[in-house]
Amino acid sequence: MEKLYVIKIGGNIIDDEAKLSSFLQSFALIDGKKILVHGGGKLATRVAEAMGISQQMIDGRRITDAETLKVVTMVYAGFINKNIVAKLQANGCNTIGLTGADGNLITAHKRSHATIDYGFVGDVDAVNDELISQLLQKNINLVVAPVTHDSKGSLLNTNADTIAQEIAKAMSRGHEVSLIYCFEKRGVLLNAEDEDSAIAEINPAYFSTLKEKEIISAGMIPKLDNAFAALQSGVQHILIGHADDLSQLINNQAGTAITNE
Amino acid sequence: MEKLYVIKIGGNIIDDEAKLSSFLQSFALIDGKKILVHGGGKLATRVAEAMGISQQMIDGRRITDAETLKVVTMVYAGFINKNIVAKLQANGCNTIGLTGADGNLITAHKRSHATIDYGFVGDVDAVNDELISQLLQKNINLVVAPVTHDSKGSLLNTNADTIAQEIAKAMSRGHEVSLIYCFEKRGVLLNAEDEDSAIAEINPAYFSTLKEKEIISAGMIPKLDNAFAALQSGVQHILIGHADDLSQLINNQAGTAITNE
Repeated sequence: MEKLYVIKIGGNIIDDEAKLSSFLQSFALIDGKKILVHGGGKLATRVAEAMGISQQMIDGRRITDAETLKVVTMVYAGFINKNIVAKLQANGCNTIGLTGADGNLITAHKRSHATIDYGFVGDVDAVNDELISQLLQKNINLVVAPVTHDSKGSLLNTNADTIAQEIAKAMSRGHEVSLIYCFEKRGVLLNAEDEDSAIAEINPAYFSTLKEKEIISAGMIPKLDNAFAALQSGVQHILIGHADDLSQLINNQAGTAITNE
Repeated sequence: MEKLYVIKIGGNIIDDEAKLSSFLQSFALIDGKKILVHGGGKLATRVAEAMGISQQMIDGRRITDAETLKVVTMVYAGFINKNIVAKLQANGCNTIGLTGADGNLITAHKRSHATIDYGFVGDVDAVNDELISQLLQKNINLVVAPVTHDSKGSLLNTNADTIAQEIAKAMSRGHEVSLIYCFEKRGVLLNAEDEDSAIAEINPAYFSTLKEKEIISAGMIPKLDNAFAALQSGVQHILIGHADDLSQLINNQAGTAITNE
């Protein structure tokens, strides 16, 4: 099967112009088909503040009201997505930037919760793997913004980790998929204070041990739960590592590999 | 040759939610391949004001400095483009929203002018008609934002009329193209005060007469000059009319037809 890289970057890289440029250069150099999924960044908060749109948080989760959705669409699908595409084109990497609404790429439904109204937040229903395959076949790589749609005219703010995972799962039916989460650490750390303590490999048994010993941070546990679920759904390789190490990550020479065995 | 509709809408329709919805319903109902090119709207000015970005005008032309380009990218390529796509999907019309950077759709260069620095404003160099044809063949219609790129990493603010025309010209090599400019008047009016005075057809000789008699408004002259140039370049049909009349315009039953003879 042909290889496909699904790579996710978060706000920490997006907010730093030099880091982002360097990351995009490495991304452009990857030999083969690739999809970049990006999160948001601080610009959304700045634009919301400037426009007098207050950000409501409930239990630590951001609520996406209609005005916040407007900002999310402007910043994620507009500014961030199109600047990444323009920079990749300048690096000789042909890409198209898409949201879930474009070509019906990702359909979702508004999250329903017993007590919290998250607003315009989407949980993914389906990924249009046929469209992705068609574009990749034309040697067009994709840059996907964390915005989906409900097929009824509403855009929905959607977690970028989830989008990367759902795309990786859908594409693993016809490709050998490597799902790579890039962030600002060298991988899953044994010691949060020590950047050099990245764990090379985590399998389910070791994950249980790490959780029992409370070595893994609370924020990392759902990410790893999701990673193991993606492996179960057919994604062949999953890695978590530093954005600076992209060229090593794609060769499994850096970061933390999540494995089944 | 297969028919293709290239339809342009401006800010007056985009700013009015009810008008836009009604227009998009008509657009979705057009039988055949179609491309929608949209302009900006008042939201860009509102966002710029909110963010404290002053809008500089020289000789009545807006200057696109780096901060204004940010707003243009957010509002045109993000908010407007993606909301149109989501609404068309809800109307059963499969579309992808693109800027000129996506898939290298439209390359441009920064405008150079002897005395005025327009900033990040692009004049079109080339349209990637191969990509457009490939997407149309997959029954994907396009929604194009008025943002292009210079292939060196910069996005460029670009006139939507020009984009519509350049796409129409490029696509006329393999399609029978109808280029339709939709705005808030019933066509080119003989009497600016009388909405029912739309001229059915203008050929070059009549255009000269209308200019001599100073019947056509100054703002309309460059539009018509461009329309005649597009006809010369192979675009088969050009119409100017009211956005409400889209279904009649595509059958040449409303608006002003621009013709060679």
